[in-house]
Amino acid sequence: MQKNNVQTDRPLKPLLLGLAGYGTVGSGLARILDENREAIRRRAGRDIRIKSVLVRDPSRPRQYPLPEGASFCTEMSCLYDDPELDVVVELIGGVVNAGEVIRRSLLAGKHVVTANKALLAEDGKDLFQLAAEKGLYLGYEASVCGGIPVVQTLRESLAANRIVTLSGILNGTCNYILSSMTSKGMSFDAALKEAQDQGFAEADPTLDIEGFDAAHKLALLIRLAWGIHYPFKDLPVSGISRVAAEDIQFAREFGYNIKLLGYAQMEGDTLDAGVFPFLVPNSYLLAKVGYSYNAVRIEGNAVGSVFLHGRGAGDMPTGSAVAADILAIARGDQPNNLGFCGAELPAAKIRPPKESRSRYYFRLQVQDKPGVMRDVAAILAENNISIHQALQKGLTDVVPLMFMTHLAKTRDVENALASIAACGFTRAEPVYYRVLPQPNESD
Amino acid sequence: MQKNNVQTDRPLKPLLLGLAGYGTVGSGLARILDENREAIRRRAGRDIRIKSVLVRDPSRPRQYPLPEGASFCTEMSCLYDDPELDVVVELIGGVVNAGEVIRRSLLAGKHVVTANKALLAEDGKDLFQLAAEKGLYLGYEASVCGGIPVVQTLRESLAANRIVTLSGILNGTCNYILSSMTSKGMSFDAALKEAQDQGFAEADPTLDIEGFDAAHKLALLIRLAWGIHYPFKDLPVSGISRVAAEDIQFAREFGYNIKLLGYAQMEGDTLDAGVFPFLVPNSYLLAKVGYSYNAVRIEGNAVGSVFLHGRGAGDMPTGSAVAADILAIARGDQPNNLGFCGAELPAAKIRPPKESRSRYYFRLQVQDKPGVMRDVAAILAENNISIHQALQKGLTDVVPLMFMTHLAKTRDVENALASIAACGFTRAEPVYYRVLPQPNESD
Repeated sequence: MQKNNVQTDRPLKPLLLGLAGYGTVGSGLARILDENREAIRRRAGRDIRIKSVLVRDPSRPRQYPLPEGASFCTEMSCLYDDPELDVVVELIGGVVNAGEVIRRSLLAGKHVVTANKALLAEDGKDLFQLAAEKGLYLGYEASVCGGIPVVQTLRESLAANRIVTLSGILNGTCNYILSSMTSKGMSFDAALKEAQDQGFAEADPTLDIEGFDAAHKLALLIRLAWGIHYPFKDLPVSGISRVAAEDIQFAREFGYNIKLLGYAQMEGDTLDAGVFPFLVPNSYLLAKVGYSYNAVRIEGNAVGSVFLHGRGAGDMPTGSAVAADILAIARGDQPNNLGFCGAELPAAKIRPPKESRSRYYFRLQVQDKPGVMRDVAAILAENNISIHQALQKGLTDVVPLMFMTHLAKTRDVENALASIAACGFTRAEPVYYRVLPQPNESD
Repeated sequence: MQKNNVQTDRPLKPLLLGLAGYGTVGSGLARILDENREAIRRRAGRDIRIKSVLVRDPSRPRQYPLPEGASFCTEMSCLYDDPELDVVVELIGGVVNAGEVIRRSLLAGKHVVTANKALLAEDGKDLFQLAAEKGLYLGYEASVCGGIPVVQTLRESLAANRIVTLSGILNGTCNYILSSMTSKGMSFDAALKEAQDQGFAEADPTLDIEGFDAAHKLALLIRLAWGIHYPFKDLPVSGISRVAAEDIQFAREFGYNIKLLGYAQMEGDTLDAGVFPFLVPNSYLLAKVGYSYNAVRIEGNAVGSVFLHGRGAGDMPTGSAVAADILAIARGDQPNNLGFCGAELPAAKIRPPKESRSRYYFRLQVQDKPGVMRDVAAILAENNISIHQALQKGLTDVVPLMFMTHLAKTRDVENALASIAACGFTRAEPVYYRVLPQPNESD
């Protein structure tokens, strides 16, 4: 590919793109390249044009018209076999076909840009190796938190840091539902229904609400932050479908908002990570992220905390991130796909989830009779769990009993809750969530 | 300079740095390069070492010891005349000597990294041109908001956007003072004194509290966002030294926090920009930025809003940003200093400050007698100022009268306030501040 050299006035040939897929993000990208043509030319020093768009059915109506000079094709080879194309942009999603498009495009010597988090989290290793062997760009800014520049920030801006923790609101659907539950006191089911009606949740919301989409993004963030490979299937994942309106209410009384976080913390050389509902102190900016917004908080040993917030999805925000990678290619930047040198990343040294330590909130539904608090307190003490705050509510026969603990091992919490359940005075399965520690100032 | 190629296992020679200055940021950089040596080597594919450090007095005690293998020197030429040095890092501040170090280093073919906002805002044009002619890196991530990756975000991550507005809390000293005034009800003088005692304000705080430091950063952000040159001396600047505790209190009653913002908005091809105290709606994340933190909110036509928050100063956060630029050089990235192609940036088309339109808050101290509100309302109407909210307080002879307006021209506001003052019932000079419009959701 021709190198961009900002020193010459000699016009560079346009950068030609082939798109796989022309749905939401593809349309957004086409619109951005149209509407911001002049601005992009000033930035990149050349034109960027879509030449071919791979779709299943060219006759289907589209959200945005095909740009001038571009044409639909229906065979994958129209992308990787076209010697004119500089970049293939993979936007079909899924794992099998998308992987095939990317692999063949890299083999054909084309740079690749993708928004496909599932593929890169589950199957990224080989593709990154192939891109490295070929010296090609495999851009994926759009695959994590849409328009928020978190890939670039971890890979480049914070490159001199050892990352201590990262925590993020990585899924807009979950955040929309939790925000509705918090601000309107809705049940999970009602909030999900509203999110579906508003277009913020899919008809089948499983991938989102059970935390798997956030986990895909977390796996990529871990790779970017620490240069290690954490097998996606080993990530502990817990979604929001069992979060009750009353836990949201009680959390607020303690000064917290419940958020689904992708969370990772490095202690020594051992990583503690997962996707869980967390009680986030109200003083955190993370607690204030509303509705469909995404946000990531990164703590580096030099930079302190950095907090990034923006639109995590949508045609234009995600298209903006795809276009940023394309512009880097147009400028002739060196590929820096993983952010770490070397052909292969080492495996993460993972703290077994049951050994993970966190502050915890839990809620028991107990019979309101003498001795219950004594028995519960005794069981917690036996399991090395120190109570930070306790709250008992209500005047009925069965009352909720809430605790906030100091740091405790997950195994100890689970054992304690099992022992409490065995006492016979609980009237529902105990609920427990992790709690983020209080930050300094606003953080 | 040797290019980094992540494909080979051949070790690259270390990247050698010369530092001009060894104060807070220089010490932070040295500490980061020491403490994160392994992490940086994995990222950059090579070692990064400090060889020479230009100081006035080598015998002075230092915050961090000189790294192994480095030595002090006292002549500027030890930097630009040393053929071994790859990068000169300018951290002496000020304009004259710093400009000399940078110019001579670029002329000698060395990449330059600097944290010097004053120099680049007031005198940056020639230096950027020289760097462009020579094909060299002139990195300045550290010059705006310390550890927050705002330079990289504007230049690269949002490169496919047309930027609509940007607004930022660009000065930690001012934000510290305003935060103290807000949370503790302190006067400006008391809050300044506290900030000085805590090390968050200089003994001579003029540059910070009068808004000039924020204006330097704003000039750089404007260049990055729109690729235009806004002469620093033409930027309207208003600081916080006249912000009264009562305005902070009244703003809160209206649902706003007062923040000093660097603000710029593009309308058509005309830029409206300046540094002013603003009333920021509480629902904005910007309103929640506490104490010495910095934050920038950028709105792009594709990405929507992106909000970045972190430490704006300090040895390690600023050192982290300096190191990010050095790592980009170590990786062999193409220089992309301005983010726009072409040898020279066009001049900004500037909306005359008096033609600027904003919502406004103002406070009058008036005699509590019949007809005052009628007269004030008449004058506002004559000047095309539409009232959004009004509030009168107190039972004494002289009472504060507050207004929030709809969009109004600055000239009209100033004329109206002059006419009101001429009526004879005001008992103090009117106070007026701009008001940010309400955002959507949390933003």
